[in-house]
Amino acid sequence: MQRIALGVSYRGVAYHGWQSQPDGNTVQDRLEAALAAFADRPVRTSCAGRTDAGVHALNQVVHFDTEVSRAPGSWVRGTNRFLPPDIAVQWCRPVPASFHSRASARGRRYVYVLRESPVRPALEAGLVGWSFRRLDLAVMQDAAQCLLGEHDFGAFRSSECQAASPVKVLRAIGIEQRGAYWHFAFDANAFLHHMVRNIMGSLVAVGSGLRAPGWLGQVLAARDRTRAAPTFAPDGLYFRGPYYDAADAIPDRTAADDWLP
Amino acid sequence: MQRIALGVSYRGVAYHGWQSQPDGNTVQDRLEAALAAFADRPVRTSCAGRTDAGVHALNQVVHFDTEVSRAPGSWVRGTNRFLPPDIAVQWCRPVPASFHSRASARGRRYVYVLRESPVRPALEAGLVGWSFRRLDLAVMQDAAQCLLGEHDFGAFRSSECQAASPVKVLRAIGIEQRGAYWHFAFDANAFLHHMVRNIMGSLVAVGSGLRAPGWLGQVLAARDRTRAAPTFAPDGLYFRGPYYDAADAIPDRTAADDWLP
Repeated sequence: MQRIALGVSYRGVAYHGWQSQPDGNTVQDRLEAALAAFADRPVRTSCAGRTDAGVHALNQVVHFDTEVSRAPGSWVRGTNRFLPPDIAVQWCRPVPASFHSRASARGRRYVYVLRESPVRPALEAGLVGWSFRRLDLAVMQDAAQCLLGEHDFGAFRSSECQAASPVKVLRAIGIEQRGAYWHFAFDANAFLHHMVRNIMGSLVAVGSGLRAPGWLGQVLAARDRTRAAPTFAPDGLYFRGPYYDAADAIPDRTAADDWLP
Repeated sequence: MQRIALGVSYRGVAYHGWQSQPDGNTVQDRLEAALAAFADRPVRTSCAGRTDAGVHALNQVVHFDTEVSRAPGSWVRGTNRFLPPDIAVQWCRPVPASFHSRASARGRRYVYVLRESPVRPALEAGLVGWSFRRLDLAVMQDAAQCLLGEHDFGAFRSSECQAASPVKVLRAIGIEQRGAYWHFAFDANAFLHHMVRNIMGSLVAVGSGLRAPGWLGQVLAARDRTRAAPTFAPDGLYFRGPYYDAADAIPDRTAADDWLP
């Protein structure tokens, strides 16, 4: 038995999220079907971060155990032959049985790409969020400071969240303006359900002047989801992927990282 | 009667190109239906550059004549209400009757975005071309020089091309590597059918070492389509749009220009 780790990129628009469902229209269902077609036997996968419907991934890390012995490059090319155009394995590594894509992860990174313009997007539809209001960089950067560190993020947690604890450590929030696009980078030990999309809604409410800068801290302290701004669209949300101890030698980026504004 | 100019962005993946067809599944058909729905009467449009199936546009410039009097912002918002998510009007200007989106254009710009990586794209599928071979910047830049200026581009013209003359003036080719992506920018007075995609096929053949650097000039001089490399995929091709005399005051870019790698 060999444990295999894979890095998977996908565009989430056409799928009901990562996790397997009876209707079969999820990324996990497509990946497991492709792995089974290549390996000629059933394959069950675990992943590092279950993404929601419409959310994209640059480097979703997955692992599985198999008796099938193939070179890493064969797993990549062989599996990709059976995957639709919007899902592709990017790399493959044999890993020790002690490695677990979720449990071994030291943290996770998400990016939210937001277009700021009076008119809605078209060719990037489904791939960026949109604000027709002007955003203020300094205001958002200042407001984001209160979220850094260990907090009860209950205010930014969906009612369906299954995490045992709402306490997470948000290690970094990077905000950059790149022409008409904003790039928001989030790094945490783990994320609650809808946490990035809920923080985005509230950051944009502050950045566009709909809310005062101090409001974000009040929402966080109140730990009450009903006080935060509406959940932002999944369109602009990208799971950049998990990261691990250097000893695990798991790639922490894929080519598409260079494609995001 | 007032002549109106619009700038339109679209993702070409779902459409049979720009030009109206009996099946109605073209960008022009969708745009004219939306304009008619907003104006409450038929609207016939002309454009600056007919794009093929699968080709995207950042700033397709369109004009039409109408008796309907609306503020420019109303045309934009009103028409966008009736357009699908992957097509959107970006700006609107009243123009004199002497302005013609195609005839007044001084030139046109295209961009081709190419991913270079051992593994195929997934989340950018349909939006980038792909080379699994390594490309050499200096070799491609040198080879591209022979294409600059006025030439008979018959070697890079599809058999269906309806242009009266194969002689065009290629004013600039810019080639830049941006991480795993290559950005090829083309500026000409006009383009033949498939000209950018055919040049791309031949540039990549040279850049990957499949062909010697001097081969591109031989292909151009031979004016024989059968000697050039295969036509490149439409996926990575973006019509950046036409440009006009400054006096015409037509916007020459839209927000999505900042979105391309």
